[in-house]
Amino acid sequence: MAVTESDKTLPLGFRWSSTTAGIKASGKPDVALAHCEGGANAAALFTRNQVVAAPVTVGRRHLAATGGRVTGVLVNAGNANCATGEPGIDACRLSCIAAANQFGCVFDEIFPSSTGIIGVPLPVEKLIAAVPAAAAALGNTREHAEAFATAILTTDTKLKVAGESITFGDASGMKTINLWGCCKGAGMIGPDLGGPPHATMLCYIFTDLGAPPEYLEPMLTKAVDASFNSISIDGDTSTNDTVLLLASGQSGVTAQLDVVPAFEAALTRLCQSLAHAIIDDGEGVTHVVTLDVTGARSDAEAKQIARSIAHSPLCKTAWSSGDPNWGRLLAAAGYAGVAFDPATVTIAIAGLPVFAHGVRAAAYDEAATHAAMLAREYTIAIDLGQADGSCRFLTCDLTHEYVSINADYST
Amino acid sequence: MAVTESDKTLPLGFRWSSTTAGIKASGKPDVALAHCEGGANAAALFTRNQVVAAPVTVGRRHLAATGGRVTGVLVNAGNANCATGEPGIDACRLSCIAAANQFGCVFDEIFPSSTGIIGVPLPVEKLIAAVPAAAAALGNTREHAEAFATAILTTDTKLKVAGESITFGDASGMKTINLWGCCKGAGMIGPDLGGPPHATMLCYIFTDLGAPPEYLEPMLTKAVDASFNSISIDGDTSTNDTVLLLASGQSGVTAQLDVVPAFEAALTRLCQSLAHAIIDDGEGVTHVVTLDVTGARSDAEAKQIARSIAHSPLCKTAWSSGDPNWGRLLAAAGYAGVAFDPATVTIAIAGLPVFAHGVRAAAYDEAATHAAMLAREYTIAIDLGQADGSCRFLTCDLTHEYVSINADYST
Repeated sequence: MAVTESDKTLPLGFRWSSTTAGIKASGKPDVALAHCEGGANAAALFTRNQVVAAPVTVGRRHLAATGGRVTGVLVNAGNANCATGEPGIDACRLSCIAAANQFGCVFDEIFPSSTGIIGVPLPVEKLIAAVPAAAAALGNTREHAEAFATAILTTDTKLKVAGESITFGDASGMKTINLWGCCKGAGMIGPDLGGPPHATMLCYIFTDLGAPPEYLEPMLTKAVDASFNSISIDGDTSTNDTVLLLASGQSGVTAQLDVVPAFEAALTRLCQSLAHAIIDDGEGVTHVVTLDVTGARSDAEAKQIARSIAHSPLCKTAWSSGDPNWGRLLAAAGYAGVAFDPATVTIAIAGLPVFAHGVRAAAYDEAATHAAMLAREYTIAIDLGQADGSCRFLTCDLTHEYVSINADYST
Repeated sequence: MAVTESDKTLPLGFRWSSTTAGIKASGKPDVALAHCEGGANAAALFTRNQVVAAPVTVGRRHLAATGGRVTGVLVNAGNANCATGEPGIDACRLSCIAAANQFGCVFDEIFPSSTGIIGVPLPVEKLIAAVPAAAAALGNTREHAEAFATAILTTDTKLKVAGESITFGDASGMKTINLWGCCKGAGMIGPDLGGPPHATMLCYIFTDLGAPPEYLEPMLTKAVDASFNSISIDGDTSTNDTVLLLASGQSGVTAQLDVVPAFEAALTRLCQSLAHAIIDDGEGVTHVVTLDVTGARSDAEAKQIARSIAHSPLCKTAWSSGDPNWGRLLAAAGYAGVAFDPATVTIAIAGLPVFAHGVRAAAYDEAATHAAMLAREYTIAIDLGQADGSCRFLTCDLTHEYVSINADYST
């Protein structure tokens, strides 16, 4: 298959495809497949929920068994294969074996994921039957990559993809490392990957950097902490959240000292771009709010305060109408479980001061603040005045549409 | 003023009243006053929010200064006097002095409370000007008590009152202890009294039992843990939450060994009745859900799981439409931060099994479960299968109406 101009920014060594197995009720493509000939090095972070889906259990075991090698990624949307017991584990394994047969690799080099409804047995016969068609459709163009990215979506309304390219010069000339990633998620979003658990968020990042799994994991952890672990739509940490990073090594550039900082920065930008796409496409979202908490005793305490505000129904409903009710921000910070003195706190909304040192800011202008909050995106800055701990957290409003989407039920 | 038949169940020694100071925009009564001639013994629990309103600071100081003696209770609704700095403290003190002048007591025998908007200076001149009229209107009938209970309301749609009477026989004949209490609260409700902080919930309990403050406090703590600290509407712990218990001693019955268990039981019933009234009148509530978590390693872990479910937007929106989406319950339990194995968990909704030992219950009947969830009130029972820890927690659904109430804003 011809490689078009734009495809030069896709990482070398990967092929992608999608097909329709009939698992999504909508009849849309619901199986995504990715392949790396000869295998890629891998690092993954999973939800910290106590209840995890079968593919999370199986994916963990496979990475442990292979020491972090992945030849194929098999994702189904429309069914989470969660709370399905041992039959769910067996179904997941059978689907991995089907994919391994296509690629001529061992079955634990297949990395499985599922997203969709919890507690309904996975129709694994449909998934297995779809694998040959998915394998036949594999290709390395942008269209193929975006077909993969489309098939993993559930309640998302937008495709979520991002790419980064970094170039290095050495004795033999210039070399490029490409990264490309995609993700899904619009509800049950409050990721706590590696650490605490979150929404169903699936993310796959492909790069042609050469790096062993033990290098990839800390880089991924750092990037995820600054992106997916710093966002929330509804605070409902999912049972299936997964971020997978695959490195094919086919760029010819390896993770040497001079490469690592630039790669880490690119990986973080890519994750932040995808994390922003999730919030921006959140269920019923009309406002994207960045919480910029500074002056805390630690980064962890700053994040605790950000999360408390991000999960407060009173703050989130106020944002939906641009209500500058800063008392709700202060109250939510106050019950976060972090000690502070309101007398040292300052709060600004979209750069406009609203609270300073224990009282309403002298310059508080309700009408101007309300007007600024009508923008789709703005920042709320909260300085605790204690020390240097900080956190930038991305969240959104709570709207009628969110209630409609999640209360929709008919027997 | 004549004491009517029904008033015999009101505790002796108290008088109540209300008046209109013009603090509520609606023009409804917004000042509530209670008086105990000669003073009552008192115990109080306050919000654990880091940000507390001026009356919480002042109330704490007054109880400490008097060793738990209260002659008068002065409440205003319409303004929380929170995030108002030192001027807010001064305003609160001035209002206490005005009430003390009416009763001829020291100013720290006045217990102040405020509820309403945060961050707007209290119009204390209006409150002070209203005190003489409130004092002149004091009386000991049910109408007076309910006038007090009405004036403290804000977004509440219903009066919230409860009474208990217990009778003891001794050598000199039968004696009765009466308890009567009232409360307010419909939003910013996630109380964490004495412990963590919650919604603006104010509660005043009057009894004619004779008991020193050091006896009252543990009894109140126990009753509050089983009632107000086990409810949540939106999880937004307020800056002003207060529960006050006043004991006049005028029943002639003192807190002896034989009286204490019956009194404690009556106090707990009264608190539970008022706590139920708060959830039942929660902003936009259409379903009241009891979470009955059992089989946990401790009561604290059971409550942690109950809170996680009670604050999950996905669970709460599902309840609004009677959607038996038990996967959301399981996911929310899973991210509560409590270790458990889904294989030992069972879940029943309104007595109907939905999940058992890692998978959907064999007897799961979606249509029947949905039908049962159309009732206004039902119980969700979750057994973790670990040990004997348990918690009964009262919460509600999240509806369009909740969003409308809290997003309502016009410049």
